[in-house]
Formats: sequence, C-alpha cells, structure tokens
Amino acid sequence: MDSDALLSSRAHSTVSSVIRDLLRLVDRPDMLSLAGGLPAPEHLPVARIAEALARVRGTRVGGTRALQYGPTEGMVELREVVAGRLRCPINEIVICTGSQQGLDLVARSLLDPGDLVVVADPSYLGSLQSFRAAGAELHAVASDEDGLDVEALGVVLESGLRPKLVSVVTDFANPTGATLSAARRRRLLELAVGFGFVVVEDNPYGELRWAGEAEPSLGALAAGTPAADLVVTLGSASKVLAPGLRLGWLRGPAWLTDAVVRLKQSSDLHTSSLDQLLAADVLGDTAFMEAHLGLIRADYCTRAGVLVDALSDFGGGRIEAALPDGGMFVWARLTDGSSSSDLFERALEEGVAFVPGAAFSLDIPSDGRRSDRLRMCFTTLRPDELKVAVSRLVSILPR
Amino acid sequence: MDSDALLSSRAHSTVSSVIRDLLRLVDRPDMLSLAGGLPAPEHLPVARIAEALARVRGTRVGGTRALQYGPTEGMVELREVVAGRLRCPINEIVICTGSQQGLDLVARSLLDPGDLVVVADPSYLGSLQSFRAAGAELHAVASDEDGLDVEALGVVLESGLRPKLVSVVTDFANPTGATLSAARRRRLLELAVGFGFVVVEDNPYGELRWAGEAEPSLGALAAGTPAADLVVTLGSASKVLAPGLRLGWLRGPAWLTDAVVRLKQSSDLHTSSLDQLLAADVLGDTAFMEAHLGLIRADYCTRAGVLVDALSDFGGGRIEAALPDGGMFVWARLTDGSSSSDLFERALEEGVAFVPGAAFSLDIPSDGRRSDRLRMCFTTLRPDELKVAVSRLVSILPR
Repeated sequence: MDSDALLSSRAHSTVSSVIRDLLRLVDRPDMLSLAGGLPAPEHLPVARIAEALARVRGTRVGGTRALQYGPTEGMVELREVVAGRLRCPINEIVICTGSQQGLDLVARSLLDPGDLVVVADPSYLGSLQSFRAAGAELHAVASDEDGLDVEALGVVLESGLRPKLVSVVTDFANPTGATLSAARRRRLLELAVGFGFVVVEDNPYGELRWAGEAEPSLGALAAGTPAADLVVTLGSASKVLAPGLRLGWLRGPAWLTDAVVRLKQSSDLHTSSLDQLLAADVLGDTAFMEAHLGLIRADYCTRAGVLVDALSDFGGGRIEAALPDGGMFVWARLTDGSSSSDLFERALEEGVAFVPGAAFSLDIPSDGRRSDRLRMCFTTLRPDELKVAVSRLVSILPR
Repeated sequence: MDSDALLSSRAHSTVSSVIRDLLRLVDRPDMLSLAGGLPAPEHLPVARIAEALARVRGTRVGGTRALQYGPTEGMVELREVVAGRLRCPINEIVICTGSQQGLDLVARSLLDPGDLVVVADPSYLGSLQSFRAAGAELHAVASDEDGLDVEALGVVLESGLRPKLVSVVTDFANPTGATLSAARRRRLLELAVGFGFVVVEDNPYGELRWAGEAEPSLGALAAGTPAADLVVTLGSASKVLAPGLRLGWLRGPAWLTDAVVRLKQSSDLHTSSLDQLLAADVLGDTAFMEAHLGLIRADYCTRAGVLVDALSDFGGGRIEAALPDGGMFVWARLTDGSSSSDLFERALEEGVAFVPGAAFSLDIPSDGRRSDRLRMCFTTLRPDELKVAVSRLVSILPR
C-alpha cells in the first residue's frame, strides 16, 4: 500500500526535531543534560496539588465537576484566576491544553496556506511547527539582546512584506534569553495597527525574573488603543506550576477568541476539567504562589550563576555567557568562532548535552552567526552537576 | 478593523452547533434535559480517582512524573493498559486529549482541502467539525438499524466516488443507537482494501452493552490482513471513566500513528501526564472496572427501559422507540409524521429538552426521514424524572 499517497500535505510537511531525536537516542545514566527545557522536578508542587484535589472534592459538586464535561472556553474558576493575574475581563480568557495549543489554535484560526508569519531569528523551532502545520510561510527577522529587531521589521514592511501574524516571545526568549525592550514593544504595536497584522505575545518565562524590572506586556500596552484588537497573549502554567497538567491560556479580542473557541470544540472539546480546577486552586492561592515563585526564582538565579561562573572559571576564555535576569536558558558563545554543531556529538560521548545554536536557525539563508552558540538550560541540574557538565564540555573545546 | 479579513477560511467554515447554542440559552432550574450526552454524574468515580492520586504519589517518582512533561505518544503506563484492553501491541497506541482530538489529528494527517470523507446519515455533527476544519468535503451514505449501509457505499464507490476516509461509529451510534452488523463490517474492510481508503472506527459506547453479543471490532477483524494498514480505531475514557479527564486513544498502523504523533507535538505537545497516570491506575484495575462498568450498564439499562416504557405507556401510540442493547441514546419516532423540530421550542417552554432528528442531517438534499425523530439521552435523569419528562413531552404532541 502506498501510505504516502494517503497522508495530507500537512502531514508531509510536519517534521520531528532532529536534535530531539538525537537526544532521545542517548540514554546514558550519567548523562548531564543542559539540552532540556524542563522545570526543576524538585519545585513541582506535588503536595500542594494533592491538597487541591482534597479541597476540590470537599466542595459540594467539585469532585463531580472535575470529572464531567465542561465548557470549551474553560472553567470559570480558572478563567477568573487567570483574568486576575493578567488584570483583564474574564471574557477575554480562553483556557487551552498548554500554551502550545493556544499557538496552534491561533495559527489555524488566522492562517491559510501561503499566508506569511514573521518570527524572530533565532527562534525555538517547536513553536514554529504550528505555523508550518497551518500551511504558513515563515519570514525570519533578526533579533539581538533587546529581542526582535522591530526597526528591521519596519523596513521589510515598508518594502512590501505583508505578514498576517508576527510572533514574539517577549520575556527571556528561547533560546537567547533576550527580553523585548519597551521602545520596541511600543513600535511593534504601531506597526501592527499601521499594517494590520496580529501580534502573538508568547510569554511562558516572564514570571521567572529574579533581577531587573519587567517591561509592560504588549497586552497591557495595547489596552484601550486600536492595537487591542490585534494583540493576543499566551500564558502557561508549565514553568510556574507544572507542565504535566498541560494548561495554558490565551487572552485576546472577541473576534479572535470566538474563532479559537469554535476551533477548540473540534480539536479537543475542552481542556481537562480536573487539571483546571486543581490549577485554579493553586494559582488562586496568592500566598502560596508568591512563596513558590520566590523559591524557584532564587534557585534558578543560583543555578544560572553557577553555570555562568563555571564557564568563565573553567573555559579559559574559549566560551563566554552573560548572566540572565530570569528564564531558564544561557545563550553561550564559543569565542574562537568554532562550530557548536561540530562539538555536539563529541559532547554526547563525554556525557554532556546542550542544543547547538544552528538548531534555532530557520531553513533560510543564514549568516552563520548561530553556529558559535550553545543553548544551555540550567534548571534541572544541581549546582555540583552544572560544574561537572561544564568541565566535561570544556575538556573537548578546541585549544 | 476588518477582523473578518484576518480570519482563515478554516475559521470562517467552523460553525457552532445551532442546537447547542439554543440549549445554552435555556437555563430553567426545572428543565428536564434528554438533550445531553453526558454520563451519569453519580457514576463518576471521584473516590477511586482520589485513591489513584494517593497511589501515584506513593511511587518513587510518580508524583513528579505526573506533573512533568511527558512523551507525545502518551505515558507508557496508560498505553500498556489500553493495549491490553484492545489486545494489540503497545506501539500501535497513541494517547489523545479525548477521542475528539484523535479524530481531529487523523483528519488533519490525512485530509487536504477538497478531499472526500464518507460519513453515515444521520451522524453526530460534532464529530464532523474536525473533517470540515481540515477542509474536507463530506459525502453522506444512508444508515439503518444495522448501521452504515455498506452496500450503498459500494454502489457509490463503483460509480466513481473516491473517499480518502470513511468514518463510522460502530457500536450504539450517536444518534441512532445502531450497531454495525458483522457482515457489513467484513464488507467495509473489503471495500477499504479494494478502493484504498482509511476506515475510522470510532467506538466510545461499545463497553456500555447490557444485552446481546458484541460484534468483533474492525481493528480485530483487520488484524493480519491487508486491511490492517487501513483501519484506525478510536477509544475514549469519557463514557467508562470520566469525560473531564479528556482522555482518548487511537490505535492504528505505524505510517499513520507516526504522522499523528508529529502533528500532536505541534497541537498540544502531549496529553496531561497527571490524568494519564490516574486513568492508568483506574483502568488497569480490572476488578474495579468490571464492577464499575457492571453498575453503569445495569443502571443505564434500567433508565433506558423506564424511558421506552414511559413513551409507550403515556404516548398513546403517537411516539415510539425501541429498547437499545446499550449506549446512551434512544432514537424515538413521531408516528404521525409530524416534525420534531416544530416540537422543539414548545418542549423547551414545557421544561423538557431533546435533540430534533433534523440536527443530525448533513447540509445535503435530505429525504426528510429524520424530521420525525428525536434523540433522547437517558443517562442523566433519574427514573422518576424520566417519567415526568415524557409526560411533559407527550402533553404537547399533536392530537
């Protein structure tokens, strides 16, 4: 049977990540991985979630509601808590099965095959799979330590590029850790209104800030202006609570959330009622969340510091990295211009994993700037393990 | 802003159900609804799920795994339990966020805009939203008390129709309650191999059988034959455990499950780890499940009997319905040929809801056979309420 002929063009264009597949092959018990993007397991609030279940069961119909069908837009308890956190009306909130689903539903609601989407270069390719699956063409615009280069975006818009959607990770972006500057945020909204495109503000890492001041969100900046109709904000419980619950949320204008909810009906009817009620209980417990986030931030700050210091102490100037103000990633650089992709397989043999910078370049003519970069996630290794990981890595750097 | 111009053609073609919207408007506290499709709330195993959480926490890394990212194809614990229930190798199983997602991922993996899908007439329109969202054209083939009329399908195939996919609810179909006969199952597989289309076997209600013998599943009939490459089976925890967990599964050949998993990665990364581990614990507890399903079947059998008897006792021959062998629905008929749609709004005023038969007809030339039908769900009303509901309905039947 020719099964290839039965697959849709969508299925043919959907590829798995090469890096992810390679990493899966390596299953050494002593592997020290800086390649992941998982939250620290010791900060997953197992006991607090169990307490939430006891509390949900304790309410009159809570146990039954947690196991019964629910509304497609999400359960009112969680939507209320999320609206409170985002300081917006509850009717602007749709609960999704992870923010990945939010991205996918927005993509499918807006994009026809051939439509143009602007993303930052470099970008986490996982997030681009949704745009590709919707049939979109991707156009990459450069980014630097202040995030997406919005002036460069303005230039290509002026020269005729007409994206339907521009997607940015605003805070501690994956992989660079960069945060979009306030000036660029304002300019991006002006461009959105001027050229009539939707801005997706993806912000899973914003609450993991341990230094510096947060910039106002695009959603907050747009509120009450013509841009409000063109900004959709995605949030996630994955980095602040638990990724296993698959809970995200989307805040947007009614014309878009209406379309998203209709499409979600055919995609999975609704998100787990149980997980929503558990998350509402925990996220709504502001005293717990403040303490919980305080612990995570302090711990991640320590680990990031250990990693950056070890790179500096052991690296002999051959590798450098700046200490981030938050997030989960260090975007290190090989100073002699050698290629992190060349290093990758040797590193796996030595028992240390990272993601080579080239993995975040789109399939477009690249100027090769990424090949000297390494994305290092510092959240899952303990400080002593981080030092061993760096010493293993340094041992194979070219001299 | 012209937001319509920003929406995709997919979003424009995705409509909400008129009936669902109408029913939402009616929020009378004394409404007796036969319109739903929800399992009986008293059979939702709240205590057993809480016990499962305690057990998951009790294992060495269970609590952490329940809250951490997991594999896209599903957690091995649940895949093992499902493979055991379906008597197939574990690598044929993909866990989905409800069987609705299974349907959606299969549709998107197989269908390009304009591709043809054959469905039964009547069909539950909710299940067709996924095909429409993937851009498919729908072609309806008649069905009767033995399910989809497979000979009629053969005729249209011979005359040149080339569907990429044929979708059937094999057991106690929604809305008719019909079960596909053994002969038609075998013939359907022959046609699939002969004409090269995929058969989706959707079976959420099969385990709710309280009388008669189950037919062998299409997946079981196809095993070891050329048809095995063309059959995908969808299952669900919604009717046997709890819909709020949003857990379904898909069993299919590798060429299709590979594509489904790649697409699921961009759709929601994976299904809730917590819900999967809880369901694995409960579904894997065969002693509990046997007792639990025994209770549900006995109770639904009683309720179905009360409903059918009440229609016969109070209806004075103006409405008739056969007692089903399982499932959740009675497919009643107005014997004087009057229209159930005409009855619908009057019924809501009287405090009783059902779904008019016309709601299950596709937007194709219809011969009007459905307009005398009513779909009645007997699972959520108590026996005394079922009698009141029928008496309210009968009070407005034309004399």
